[in-house]
Amino acid sequence: MARQSNGTSAISRVVLVLDTFSVEAPFLSLSEISERAGLPLSSTHRIVTELVGHGLIERMPDRSYRVGNRLWELGSRTPGALGLREIALPYLHAVQTRVRQHTQLLVRSDLDVLVIERLSARDAVVNASIVGGRIPVQHSSSGIVLLAHADEAEVLLDRVVARGLNPITPTSLRTATQLRDAVEHARHEGFAVSEGFIFPESRGIAVPVRGSQDVVVGAISVVVPNDGSAVHDFVRLLRLAADGIHEALLRSYLPVGHPNARAGGIYRQLVSSSDRSMEYFEHLLTDHVSLNGNTVSLWPTDPLERESSSG
Amino acid sequence: MARQSNGTSAISRVVLVLDTFSVEAPFLSLSEISERAGLPLSSTHRIVTELVGHGLIERMPDRSYRVGNRLWELGSRTPGALGLREIALPYLHAVQTRVRQHTQLLVRSDLDVLVIERLSARDAVVNASIVGGRIPVQHSSSGIVLLAHADEAEVLLDRVVARGLNPITPTSLRTATQLRDAVEHARHEGFAVSEGFIFPESRGIAVPVRGSQDVVVGAISVVVPNDGSAVHDFVRLLRLAADGIHEALLRSYLPVGHPNARAGGIYRQLVSSSDRSMEYFEHLLTDHVSLNGNTVSLWPTDPLERESSSG
Repeated sequence: MARQSNGTSAISRVVLVLDTFSVEAPFLSLSEISERAGLPLSSTHRIVTELVGHGLIERMPDRSYRVGNRLWELGSRTPGALGLREIALPYLHAVQTRVRQHTQLLVRSDLDVLVIERLSARDAVVNASIVGGRIPVQHSSSGIVLLAHADEAEVLLDRVVARGLNPITPTSLRTATQLRDAVEHARHEGFAVSEGFIFPESRGIAVPVRGSQDVVVGAISVVVPNDGSAVHDFVRLLRLAADGIHEALLRSYLPVGHPNARAGGIYRQLVSSSDRSMEYFEHLLTDHVSLNGNTVSLWPTDPLERESSSG
Repeated sequence: MARQSNGTSAISRVVLVLDTFSVEAPFLSLSEISERAGLPLSSTHRIVTELVGHGLIERMPDRSYRVGNRLWELGSRTPGALGLREIALPYLHAVQTRVRQHTQLLVRSDLDVLVIERLSARDAVVNASIVGGRIPVQHSSSGIVLLAHADEAEVLLDRVVARGLNPITPTSLRTATQLRDAVEHARHEGFAVSEGFIFPESRGIAVPVRGSQDVVVGAISVVVPNDGSAVHDFVRLLRLAADGIHEALLRSYLPVGHPNARAGGIYRQLVSSSDRSMEYFEHLLTDHVSLNGNTVSLWPTDPLERESSSG
């Protein structure tokens, strides 16, 4: 892409601008965006104006900006985040209904875990998870499980130690040896427990979720009271759910029409709905649905196409 | 931004590339991306390579590409989509628990509704909603509600008619007059019903969700059997939920520290969790949390900052 004199490409500048928004600061003024992105006000203005034109950023009545629904829409096409969430959701609900505490789905993003979904209850224990937020791997039972099953786990471990373990509570992992032991335990036992790593009163229990060829694609966890009770029942429940997600993932990635393929046709990698709905999706093989002789596009995905066809 | 000879800016080309992925085609080869985006293979390759470097697109072992979790993460910072979903979710669950059919949250995006969340049950009726997917406004009870309360509703109505109503079933809206009547009804009665508009056996019932200054920011709906039963109980339940979401939205946007502000501090516009968790968030006023004398960053948002601090 075209580069400015400072060597930053157009795409890099767009990412810098989009990344200025955070869960702590979802609304920003132009000068705040400029300052946070480290870009001159003039080029920030140019980029923001164009992003607003595409709906990736929205301008509010008070002249502040926020991330646009269009960006959320584009991001919702991720098999690794929303797709995994859709396939896992019925299983997460089944766990949450039994445990009645936080039930979560997470994936690793470099040295952090990214929270894809969190089901909670009003009276659940304190838990720092935010959907779309990150937690350093060493503070999270899911993070330890995901480290244990990562490619080049040793390199990642060294980098986590180099970043600093930053223990939060007296029971947080505070030495490289403690971290290595926890990862080793997760690798051999197939689960990890974080007892009060972030809050003394809360305990995370996580198991891996496997996809095709048994590759670990994420982790599911519960966050429950740190009351010293046995973890066995939680682990067994989480494993049942992880096995169900694993099977659903495998069946979602079999060719359409395969006798064991999950219902839902070409939609099944990004959708979980009722059985009747999945049967319906099974028979939708294109964007353009023919029903009662009418060809309609239920999900037009190209706004330009929509514009021109409406003119 | 820098423009190519064909007049397309770098940002436009990035959007064209990202928009080639869809729920029907979440995995694409480089040549498919090039073809769908209408961009030369060489510039597609350059853009895709850079997007992969930023994690906005991910390259799979089979050399296909998919939307990256990093794009999902950036999109998760939308108050209008994920934020609204987080604040609405406890109310959606409360409705779904009672109705045991599909319960949904939608926002308008030009002439379509965008599905932000859908809670379903295995044995629920057939329903075409996909999280992150779109439905033309005239096919959706939520779409009619959102048209009724839109700024410049008349202009939008004319554009919907000009796009073509494309009726799917015998009961779909098929004339401009029918559409206008439905919109008028929604404006005066405060709800809309779509009886078999997409599937003869399914019926949508929707009410508006209001934010600050009573502006309609979305709609919630149930999709239930189209059995001719009275809609009154569904409407009453949805209104209770919409009132609850309205109040939670207002309280989420009061200044932090205001006696009526929703708990959760600066996080409360994008998070709903347990009461204890929201109290905890209330006291987190910066990225960097000080607990037990240790300053830790629970949610590092700037990957560059993370890189440099780990070196």
